[in-house]
Amino acid sequence: MDHVSTPLQLDPDRLLPADPQTRSIARALYESVAQLPIISPHGHVAPSLLMDDEPFSDPAELFITHDHYVTRLLHSAGVDLGALGVGRSAPVDPRHAWRILAENWHLLAGTASGYWLTHELATLFDIRDEPSAETADASYDAIATRLADPAYRPRALFDRFGIEVLATTDDPMDDLSVHAALAADPTFSGRVLPTFRPDAYLDPTAADFRARIARLTEANGTAPDDFAGYLSALEARRAHFVAHGAVSADHGVREPYTVDLSDDEASALYRRAVAGDLDAAGAREFAGNMLLRMAGMSARDGLVMTIHPGVYRNHSSATFDRFGPDTGHDIPITTTYTGNLRPLLERHGLEPGLHLVLFAVDETVYSREVAPLAGFYSSVFIGAPWWFLDAPDAVVRFRSAVTETAGFYRGSGFIDDTRAFLSIPARHDMARRLDSAFLARLVREGRVSPAAAERIVTDLVDALPRKVFKL
Amino acid sequence: MDHVSTPLQLDPDRLLPADPQTRSIARALYESVAQLPIISPHGHVAPSLLMDDEPFSDPAELFITHDHYVTRLLHSAGVDLGALGVGRSAPVDPRHAWRILAENWHLLAGTASGYWLTHELATLFDIRDEPSAETADASYDAIATRLADPAYRPRALFDRFGIEVLATTDDPMDDLSVHAALAADPTFSGRVLPTFRPDAYLDPTAADFRARIARLTEANGTAPDDFAGYLSALEARRAHFVAHGAVSADHGVREPYTVDLSDDEASALYRRAVAGDLDAAGAREFAGNMLLRMAGMSARDGLVMTIHPGVYRNHSSATFDRFGPDTGHDIPITTTYTGNLRPLLERHGLEPGLHLVLFAVDETVYSREVAPLAGFYSSVFIGAPWWFLDAPDAVVRFRSAVTETAGFYRGSGFIDDTRAFLSIPARHDMARRLDSAFLARLVREGRVSPAAAERIVTDLVDALPRKVFKL
Amino acid sequence: MDHVSTPLQLDPDRLLPADPQTRSIARALYESVAQLPIISPHGHVAPSLLMDDEPFSDPAELFITHDHYVTRLLHSAGVDLGALGVGRSAPVDPRHAWRILAENWHLLAGTASGYWLTHELATLFDIRDEPSAETADASYDAIATRLADPAYRPRALFDRFGIEVLATTDDPMDDLSVHAALAADPTFSGRVLPTFRPDAYLDPTAADFRARIARLTEANGTAPDDFAGYLSALEARRAHFVAHGAVSADHGVREPYTVDLSDDEASALYRRAVAGDLDAAGAREFAGNMLLRMAGMSARDGLVMTIHPGVYRNHSSATFDRFGPDTGHDIPITTTYTGNLRPLLERHGLEPGLHLVLFAVDETVYSREVAPLAGFYSSVFIGAPWWFLDAPDAVVRFRSAVTETAGFYRGSGFIDDTRAFLSIPARHDMARRLDSAFLARLVREGRVSPAAAERIVTDLVDALPRKVFKL
Repeated sequence: MDHVSTPLQLDPDRLLPADPQTRSIARALYESVAQLPIISPHGHVAPSLLMDDEPFSDPAELFITHDHYVTRLLHSAGVDLGALGVGRSAPVDPRHAWRILAENWHLLAGTASGYWLTHELATLFDIRDEPSAETADASYDAIATRLADPAYRPRALFDRFGIEVLATTDDPMDDLSVHAALAADPTFSGRVLPTFRPDAYLDPTAADFRARIARLTEANGTAPDDFAGYLSALEARRAHFVAHGAVSADHGVREPYTVDLSDDEASALYRRAVAGDLDAAGAREFAGNMLLRMAGMSARDGLVMTIHPGVYRNHSSATFDRFGPDTGHDIPITTTYTGNLRPLLERHGLEPGLHLVLFAVDETVYSREVAPLAGFYSSVFIGAPWWFLDAPDAVVRFRSAVTETAGFYRGSGFIDDTRAFLSIPARHDMARRLDSAFLARLVREGRVSPAAAERIVTDLVDALPRKVFKL
Repeated sequence: MDHVSTPLQLDPDRLLPADPQTRSIARALYESVAQLPIISPHGHVAPSLLMDDEPFSDPAELFITHDHYVTRLLHSAGVDLGALGVGRSAPVDPRHAWRILAENWHLLAGTASGYWLTHELATLFDIRDEPSAETADASYDAIATRLADPAYRPRALFDRFGIEVLATTDDPMDDLSVHAALAADPTFSGRVLPTFRPDAYLDPTAADFRARIARLTEANGTAPDDFAGYLSALEARRAHFVAHGAVSADHGVREPYTVDLSDDEASALYRRAVAGDLDAAGAREFAGNMLLRMAGMSARDGLVMTIHPGVYRNHSSATFDRFGPDTGHDIPITTTYTGNLRPLLERHGLEPGLHLVLFAVDETVYSREVAPLAGFYSSVFIGAPWWFLDAPDAVVRFRSAVTETAGFYRGSGFIDDTRAFLSIPARHDMARRLDSAFLARLVREGRVSPAAAERIVTDLVDALPRKVFKL
Repeated sequence: MDHVSTPLQLDPDRLLPADPQTRSIARALYESVAQLPIISPHGHVAPSLLMDDEPFSDPAELFITHDHYVTRLLHSAGVDLGALGVGRSAPVDPRHAWRILAENWHLLAGTASGYWLTHELATLFDIRDEPSAETADASYDAIATRLADPAYRPRALFDRFGIEVLATTDDPMDDLSVHAALAADPTFSGRVLPTFRPDAYLDPTAADFRARIARLTEANGTAPDDFAGYLSALEARRAHFVAHGAVSADHGVREPYTVDLSDDEASALYRRAVAGDLDAAGAREFAGNMLLRMAGMSARDGLVMTIHPGVYRNHSSATFDRFGPDTGHDIPITTTYTGNLRPLLERHGLEPGLHLVLFAVDETVYSREVAPLAGFYSSVFIGAPWWFLDAPDAVVRFRSAVTETAGFYRGSGFIDDTRAFLSIPARHDMARRLDSAFLARLVREGRVSPAAAERIVTDLVDALPRKVFKL
């Protein structure tokens, strides 16, 4: 498996259909939306990146260390995560880490990460050779040189990328001072919104649940074991987020289980949870009831509720112990929505204030459950393909699976969900190309008129995310 | 999202593959079957439609009110079902309902319903513009004018559509007098067959189960709590259906669970069910045993057994309470056949008299279970894609999922399963185009010879449904 | 459904994409690997076939009787398995069996078996007409004549096929004398390796479990109820296989359940199993623990561990009773890996000595679980599409499902898994064409560079199976 150095490709027609007539239709659709502003209503970029506006330190920190898509693939090939500086590891020589990636570039062929990195290297850093052992040092130096250029600071890139809205993901107890400072900064005109992410305050099995509840209720001036106080504390934190521009609350759960409990029932479970003597079954009931209650709060305060289920977090204990969470071993499991969400939808599914966006890493739910639910409940929207499914073929499968039941107007618009700031344009560009390609096929097959396709491709990028996320 | 009026498209090559050479092969295959008679062995058109032969009242009643595919999508966009006259709602101004559909036409782009409605408007009503706010009144008037024409009465359309056989779906206690009258009517030559649909008489959790059993057994002259009498009553009703031309019995169950019980065991459960004190677990056992016993009756009396599983009915209680059943909120769940059907197949799967057609709304079962079962058991046939899966892309996925394991000759032939009489030709035409497209790809890929493809495309429309449904 | 005789097709561009530009790229990729040696690291050819090197007896024995892919399809069409000489049936007139296949040839159109048989008839036997009632006798005679030719003996075909490595599948108590004799035979230069297949010695519910354990432990000189002796007996048999060239141990389980138990816990279950008083739940725990322990042995002795889960064996008891196992009624069920394998991976997943290849007949696990697991754990590799999924469209779905998450370098390389010796070249050729087609599409869509595609297509056939299977 010796490596051959090759030119870095960036085909102007990339991701468009092979058939020349269809490609021509797709190209025209794509060109009509290629330059529209980026709306990113869910992601994991830190607001301090834009507040501090410091230069990125080096190519490894930028492209490798914090990107668990990349580090997990290198790990699967036998690279120690410590050699890449992942998580809690000691700092590493970034040039050495970059060399590891370059030598293993062939592992990324055909992957989502390979596609995005290629886009970033070609469009931002003018790299002309595929990374390899031979070209590693040259490309490292080329990138490092650019990073020292003020045009490559986060705010300059934010403008260059054409980002109109960027949502971050934040702990409910975050004071959001960075968001406030950014909003008050006259030299920065971008819209950076916090997102309320309360999982660790809702699930008694979460790490530090009791300590979190203590902090949450103390800030609220209520007793830790007072369920009504706990609810009001959550509402107060949501209001704080709303006051700082938040438009959504994000819920990452292993299963989207919900259950409708009376206040007395929920309170009894809560007190046991706070006392530390709630068993696994009780914790499931409590968390399932809180997910339902969060829908009620969303219907009242207007925060869009997004649900990201179906991931077994930290599958490898040894890796978690050495490197911490989010280090590449979160593995999907089966997901079902129809029965799990019913109590929530029975209670709030027909309320006009609720927007509920359903994501999946088990793609079987797209045609079976997500599209049918979104094709009836006005509160339910189809989340864009997420995580392991946010790659070209998976996106096409997604569109094919949901459109025939729910059309194009029950989707959330594209969500990049990324920690990798530089990948944002690559990801949104990918989505626009794929939607253009999908629509072009339907035009070529006589299923959508050219005029309708033109309207839809624009709405997918512009009107839909604004409407679904109340922007 | 302002709407742009555009010409209504009906591409003569619609649904055929993009690649010109493959399209050419597909077109020839399609043309060889385009005009063959329609065989519709399962659907939901009322026989009175053809007996009474009254004009359709108006465009809304025809295209909206009774089509839950359409009304659910409008509902998901925030339209009140009451504004469309759905279910138990008060009558509505049909012109107003039609305007709602026209204004929201873009919601249907890419959906199965959008495809069928376009076909119907273009081929039957000569509508030349996509429905929109601007064109709504004109198209309403154009359709209404045609509906007054005798050529648009049900029987005239039945002939024009080339329908050779049309099966209805009927309650076991139906006297089938309408079917008898139709068959005896010298002015109507079509074949309209009843279908035995006994779910509500087999599942103790069904609404009005006890009242139904009382009527069923009373008609049979046996005591309500006499299990042998109950079985003979069901056999008698099946015989009544057979005498009126029925060829199949249809079973809609949440899960295709079957269990083999002795007469004593089943009788004990039955008596508790009739007494109203059977719990959920017992009801599951009883219904599972009755599904197995229905296979036995089918093997004896020859009625083809069709199973339509995997739907959570009436997901929204509030909607059900206001509008009744079949109002757009039946949502699929996961289905498994391999273990569930084993007791039934152990008992009857090798009997030559049994034809068992398996449908799915969980498309994961196609390659995993349905094709392997149909690829071994001579009694098992693969049901056509159904409900949420009866659209172009889903049909292609279906063919791809089942053909490599089971070939083309273990399928049921196309099933339209529709309540929308006017959509029947659109649906069958869609199926013929998609089968032609699928076969053309296999020819182009050197996997099926041109001569074999010609034979197969005809058999799929003609020989297969006749054989599977014993027509 | 009268049959039409047609020329037997073997398009030189078969399985390549329809779009001419993509096809051209694919053809070049395919041609670069078409003649490479065949590496077959898992399959079911008997070593005695090559040791004895007897002529194949007749066309039916060669193409029908032992191929449950073919016999199950004929059975589903109503053919009695006894008429095909399946399993324990009495011998049949091979010409009559051949006629049955020929008359039913249309049933195989579009199936994997139809594709392979066509390849074999055209390339090996120069048959020019599709089998049919009219041509059955002529093709029978043509094949039979060839079979008498020494060039059609197994060893001659082994050379002609370009097989470099062929693994068999063997009982742990097999003395492997045939493998030893083959290896010692100076007139045979092929590499034929045994594979350790211990299922029936690990699962207390397996037929004859206690008798097998008695033989295993007796040969080891330990008491049947001595758990440590049982483990050492298994290790000894593995060492015997390693000494005879084995590179892998294959595990066929209904579910890939694993559980980590202490020696005391496992020993207690073992003693109950050997005493015959272990219930189903206990048997599941024991088998799940032994699967985990086999991974530990693999990490130590280096045998690659392959897991083939998700099949309900012998679904039809009546067929099993008449004809025995492997007679076409093994039916897939749902499979999940993420939770089931976690105990095994917690214990051994990061050990460099372990190679764990995961297969599936439930294709939903590809994108959801298998690719994510293989995209993190260096021990986990993605098994090639298997059994009901080893056909062209399924292979394309597989590549699409796994590549974007795990790239091309976490796969096992192609596995033919066949009992049908003559189908080996057809299957490997199919895989090479499909990989070329898949890569060509990525090149045409600007996602993989032409140079990278050239490297990958070769590595998939050559470097990958050598690395994964330690050849």
